[in-house]
Amino acid sequence: MSDDIRFDLPQGAIPRQWYNVQADLPRPLPPVLHPGTHQPVGPDDLAPLFPMQLIMQEVSQDRWIDIPDEVREIYKLWRPTPLLRARRLEKTLDTPAHIYYKYEGVSPSGSHKLNTATAQAWYNKQEGINGLTTETGAGQWGTALAQACNFFDMECVVYMVRISYEQKPYRRAIMQSFGAGVTPSPSDSTNAGRTILEADPESTGSLGIAISEAVEVAATSGGKHKYSLGSVLNHVLTHQTVIGQEALGQMEIAGEYPDVIVGPTGGGSNFAGIALPFLHQNLTAGRDTKLLGVEPAACPSLTRGVYAYDFGDTVGMTPLLKMYTLGHGFVPPPLHAGGLRYHGMASIICELWDQKLLDMVAIPQLETFAAAITFAKAEGIIAAPEAAHGIAGAIREAQAAREAGDERVILFNLCGHGHFDMSAYDAYLGGELSNYEYPQAEIERAMEALPQVG
Amino acid sequence: MSDDIRFDLPQGAIPRQWYNVQADLPRPLPPVLHPGTHQPVGPDDLAPLFPMQLIMQEVSQDRWIDIPDEVREIYKLWRPTPLLRARRLEKTLDTPAHIYYKYEGVSPSGSHKLNTATAQAWYNKQEGINGLTTETGAGQWGTALAQACNFFDMECVVYMVRISYEQKPYRRAIMQSFGAGVTPSPSDSTNAGRTILEADPESTGSLGIAISEAVEVAATSGGKHKYSLGSVLNHVLTHQTVIGQEALGQMEIAGEYPDVIVGPTGGGSNFAGIALPFLHQNLTAGRDTKLLGVEPAACPSLTRGVYAYDFGDTVGMTPLLKMYTLGHGFVPPPLHAGGLRYHGMASIICELWDQKLLDMVAIPQLETFAAAITFAKAEGIIAAPEAAHGIAGAIREAQAAREAGDERVILFNLCGHGHFDMSAYDAYLGGELSNYEYPQAEIERAMEALPQVG
Repeated sequence: MSDDIRFDLPQGAIPRQWYNVQADLPRPLPPVLHPGTHQPVGPDDLAPLFPMQLIMQEVSQDRWIDIPDEVREIYKLWRPTPLLRARRLEKTLDTPAHIYYKYEGVSPSGSHKLNTATAQAWYNKQEGINGLTTETGAGQWGTALAQACNFFDMECVVYMVRISYEQKPYRRAIMQSFGAGVTPSPSDSTNAGRTILEADPESTGSLGIAISEAVEVAATSGGKHKYSLGSVLNHVLTHQTVIGQEALGQMEIAGEYPDVIVGPTGGGSNFAGIALPFLHQNLTAGRDTKLLGVEPAACPSLTRGVYAYDFGDTVGMTPLLKMYTLGHGFVPPPLHAGGLRYHGMASIICELWDQKLLDMVAIPQLETFAAAITFAKAEGIIAAPEAAHGIAGAIREAQAAREAGDERVILFNLCGHGHFDMSAYDAYLGGELSNYEYPQAEIERAMEALPQVG
Repeated sequence: MSDDIRFDLPQGAIPRQWYNVQADLPRPLPPVLHPGTHQPVGPDDLAPLFPMQLIMQEVSQDRWIDIPDEVREIYKLWRPTPLLRARRLEKTLDTPAHIYYKYEGVSPSGSHKLNTATAQAWYNKQEGINGLTTETGAGQWGTALAQACNFFDMECVVYMVRISYEQKPYRRAIMQSFGAGVTPSPSDSTNAGRTILEADPESTGSLGIAISEAVEVAATSGGKHKYSLGSVLNHVLTHQTVIGQEALGQMEIAGEYPDVIVGPTGGGSNFAGIALPFLHQNLTAGRDTKLLGVEPAACPSLTRGVYAYDFGDTVGMTPLLKMYTLGHGFVPPPLHAGGLRYHGMASIICELWDQKLLDMVAIPQLETFAAAITFAKAEGIIAAPEAAHGIAGAIREAQAAREAGDERVILFNLCGHGHFDMSAYDAYLGGELSNYEYPQAEIERAMEALPQVG
């Protein structure tokens, strides 16, 4: 085992293919349904929103999907990302566990999101699309898509959840620096936004509402713009598997193999990105790594939701996806990890959770910020509040290792830095944050609006 | 020549020694003088402010100084830093030049400053000092010292130039996240601050004023605290030579050798960090690399100042340093590159400039922000406004290469990211910034206050 704390791969080791877990699922994913007919949607139904190559990836059963050279060239700006051993954190926690983290915050956009944004922009560009619309919560996704569109000289239209827009003016500025247009959501520029504002003029927004707005703008653009989603969909999760593939190689250099993989789950893409290549090893190479997703206690779609068909957005414009959901009308409290405020979860994650191939835990807000400060003081990095959920999960594992007296090897995905989230840290350090557990009755009320699928 | 765009060194290649240019100077540095007697100061004069090992480094004539293991262990958290070829920028500029950049923004503090902060904190800790005081302008230095003190479990007291304190609330928050105390300067907590505020209650501050405050607090702490400076002094520049040493190795991997090295100059440390190891090659290995420092046109100490003894601070508490200076009473306009608002410059840089071993250019603010946006759109990285001066200098060189039709190899130091500087970008994109050239009469007036040294 090396004394190094960082395990670098050469640039030639950037993966040449994405891993598509659909090839290895014990049973296929439930079909996506048309919101009107409740019949499975075909490629043509999705064509107004997505380019055909991404639609094909969405349903592909191929285990490996080639990464286009032009995308890999852009990846070279920051990939392979570092994998480090958190030796100072181990000391702080006085744990026999070996804690490793994969750091996606070195990307120009500051998070893993650029892995898929780059791919999505490129596939759209190939099909002659010159602009993309999207939503963003914490701002990580909007920043990534703004950069990706800039790299391929495309327009970018971002609907930003209003609470984040107000809490994170620097996020707006960085997207604008790359030429994107940014509108706080709900806005009066779309029917979806106006509907929400009529019901609640003070709405702080949600990812679901912002999705409705971005989808509407693309769908009514006459083919000029398409829509781009930063998580949830199969092709998005597939693009993120560069993370786990690199981590496999880096753990080999470190001379260890993880007993536990930890990642935060909002829509599911960064957790999938690190976990799925290790799941592949579990399924095909006799490994038995625990794959632990961490969601916020204030938005517990996997641990307290139901597995049912629901809309991906709030207004009900998208196809129906079978997923663990709190109901598409669910508006979580304005917790500071804005990127985790989503009522549902990626189908792939839901199906794997339903098949007991994953573990899940919900952690309250204050514990995640405490974990982030502990990590920052040990390792120097200020994590995004979303990423802090992964840290908190890893720390729980490390504490369990201490209690059990075992040297378990923990690897977590530090999916982004928190440089644009300092107002959240300010609030935490100033004692202004609190935990929030949704009362069961409210969750049940939100679920009453689930579409009835026969 | 490689097709890669990033040239990584293994962690074992982190330098084991700092390069001390004093061993190779054609003539020795002018002595530092006591502010009262105007006699050369000895180690004992500096002992109230600095630990003895740093004082010895300040005057050392040894070419190589061992990096303590404990410091190198901390360096491993982010070093070696990446060196990249900016191929997309080359295309944007349509230049035959090969443009490389060394990226120090990957450090936990976001800039090169942590290289010396870590070393300084450790040497202080070794001599039983449990706290450090300092000033910060842009906030890069304060963040670095806050982190370094945290790593070695020491107190950190930061005086932050008021204009930056107000423009950069997230900077304050990150320093506080690492446990530092942060006070806007001028403040009423010191005699120096009160003197300034009496003369100008609306003072937006300057690095010189903040230095006065931090020095006063350390000097009057009864030995409990010492003072730490983020640039200017010889030992600080020496610590930064890890940058250029790594770059030498990385350019070798890239299969090229730079014709021009570019770096921004505020106090001189990041420019020295990348340039001095290449100067060593110029002086001892027959190389002829142009070493180009870039200062802001609004604070042109090297290109418009005089080479004279002056105080390092504003109030006149520090020893006298011979340097190119605009006068210690000079208060530059509140340009957004706060880290470059210093009236003087490192003795080493001044002496090398006086000996015509360096080149210097002053670039106005608007050109630097335009360069930063061009760079960001090409390479994805939002640079600190200070670092943008290096980009602007590199772009000028690339344009000259296009005009001359030569393939010159340009290497610049991208000394930090601008994630905490988005308000400056906002102001630039909103058309609110302007250039500022100091009228000659004002510079001459500031110089009237230069101390008369016999």
